[in-house]
Amino acid sequence: MKAITSRDNPLYKRLKALAGSTHQQRRSGQALLEGFHLASAWLDGGAQPELCVVTDGALAHDEAQTIVARIDGQRVVMLPDALFGQLSNVVHGVGLLLLVDTPEPALPPRVADTCVVLDGVQDAGNVGSILRSAAAAGIDKVFCTPGTAHAWSSKVLRSAMGAHFLLNVFENVEPAALLDSLAAPVVITDSHGAQPVDDCDLTGAVAWVFGNEGAGVSQVWRDAAAHRVTIPQPGGMESLNVAAAAAVCLFEQVRQQRRAR
Amino acid sequence: MKAITSRDNPLYKRLKALAGSTHQQRRSGQALLEGFHLASAWLDGGAQPELCVVTDGALAHDEAQTIVARIDGQRVVMLPDALFGQLSNVVHGVGLLLLVDTPEPALPPRVADTCVVLDGVQDAGNVGSILRSAAAAGIDKVFCTPGTAHAWSSKVLRSAMGAHFLLNVFENVEPAALLDSLAAPVVITDSHGAQPVDDCDLTGAVAWVFGNEGAGVSQVWRDAAAHRVTIPQPGGMESLNVAAAAAVCLFEQVRQQRRAR
Repeated sequence: MKAITSRDNPLYKRLKALAGSTHQQRRSGQALLEGFHLASAWLDGGAQPELCVVTDGALAHDEAQTIVARIDGQRVVMLPDALFGQLSNVVHGVGLLLLVDTPEPALPPRVADTCVVLDGVQDAGNVGSILRSAAAAGIDKVFCTPGTAHAWSSKVLRSAMGAHFLLNVFENVEPAALLDSLAAPVVITDSHGAQPVDDCDLTGAVAWVFGNEGAGVSQVWRDAAAHRVTIPQPGGMESLNVAAAAAVCLFEQVRQQRRAR
Repeated sequence: MKAITSRDNPLYKRLKALAGSTHQQRRSGQALLEGFHLASAWLDGGAQPELCVVTDGALAHDEAQTIVARIDGQRVVMLPDALFGQLSNVVHGVGLLLLVDTPEPALPPRVADTCVVLDGVQDAGNVGSILRSAAAAGIDKVFCTPGTAHAWSSKVLRSAMGAHFLLNVFENVEPAALLDSLAAPVVITDSHGAQPVDDCDLTGAVAWVFGNEGAGVSQVWRDAAAHRVTIPQPGGMESLNVAAAAAVCLFEQVRQQRRAR
C-alpha cells in the first residue's frame, strides 16, 4: 500500500484531472468507480483495477477492508480525506474508489436478442436510469450512438447502480453498422399516429430505440422502425421523460412475456 | 419596464439569493420559472407573476415578446446578460424567467381519486420525473411528505416540464393527516413477497406511495398499505430507480383502465 500526501503528486494530479472531466474519462477509456457497491460489482467480474484509492477513515469499515483485501497490495493507494474529497462525486462518500479500464466490446456480428439502443440520450441521469431498467428487465446489450452521454462517466455510473456489470454496453456505435447486425425488429416510441405499446406484440425479441430528450428518435431509426409505439397518456402532458418511457416499454415487454409463458 | 444594471440593486440581490438556494425558495414560498414553456404555462393559469425578468437578447425572440405582452409593464425588469446569467439554472437559457408565488393548496377533506404520495423522495430529478409521469397519466393530486425534495425548486421545475400546472401539488403533508382524508386504497411498491403489479386490480382509484431512494417506503405507509406490489424483474438488479418504477406502475394502471373500458 502506497500513501500520497501531496497535491503535486503526478498520480494524484492524473486522478484529479480524470475525476473532473467526463471528456477526459471518455478519452482515456478509464472510469472511477466510487463506493463499496460499484467496487464490489467490478471485482466480482474477476478483473483487478488499475488502482484502489482509499482514505484512512474508509479502512475503519469492514466493507472497505473486504474490498481492499481482494486487490493486489501494490495497487492500493491511501489518500488524506482532503485530497480524496476532490476526486469524489458523492456528497457523503465512503472514501473508496477504483480506477479501472472500461470494457470496449466489439460490435457483435449478429444481434438477435432483445436489446436497447440509446440514440443521442444526452442526460447522464437518464442514461443511468435506462441502463438500470434494462439490466432489471434481463436485457444483455445496450448500444449507445454518438451523442449519447458517456456510459462510464461518474454520473451515469452512480445513477445505474451497478447495471454496467450485468450488461454489455457498446459506445460510439454507428447506426449503419448496428443495423447490419440487428436481426430483431426495431421498435421506436413516437407520439404521433403510433400504436399503443400494449397493443404491440412484444413477446419476441425487439431492438428498442430511445431518442434524444429534445429531438426524439433520429431519422435513421425512424426509417428502420418495424413498429412505432406510443404510451397512451390520458393527461395533458406532451410526453414522458425518456427514462420513464423506457421503463414503461421494457416492463410492458416483461409483462407480455410473463403472460405468454 | 424597469432596467437593473447594478449587482448591488436590492431586488437583484434578492433574486440572486433565491436562485442560489433551494432552501430559500422553499422558505419564501416563491419560485423562479425559467424559459418560455414554463412562463407560458404559468400565465395560462390566469395569474400574474410578481416579476418577469428578461434580457435584451431575449426580447429579440417573438416568443419572449408574446410572454412579456401578457404581463403588466410595471412587473417587467430588464437585466444585462451577465447579471441574468447568475440567476439562471440552464446552460443555454433563453434569458427570461418569472418570479411567482407558489400555490399552497390546503389538504382536501376527502381524496377519493387516484393520487400519488411522495414519501421522502429526495432527488429533485426523480420528483420532477414522477410529477411529469403523474400528469401524463391523468392524475390530479400529488402529496409530498416532509423529506421530499421541494417541488417548486428550480431543478424539479425543469425536470417536470410544466407538469406543475396540470397538477395540484401539496407539500409538507403529514402522513397522519393525509391518511384521515384518503378514501382510496394505499398501494406501495415492495420487492419482498409482494404481488406482481400487473396481477393487482388497478381499475379503480388507488393512492400510490413511492418511497425514498435508499430506505424505500416508510413504516407508516407500509402499515397503511392495502396492496404491496412488485415489478417483476427477470434481470439481476435489486431494484429500479424510483421514477422508473413509478412510471411503470402509473402506466400499468392506465393500461388496465383502458382495457376495462
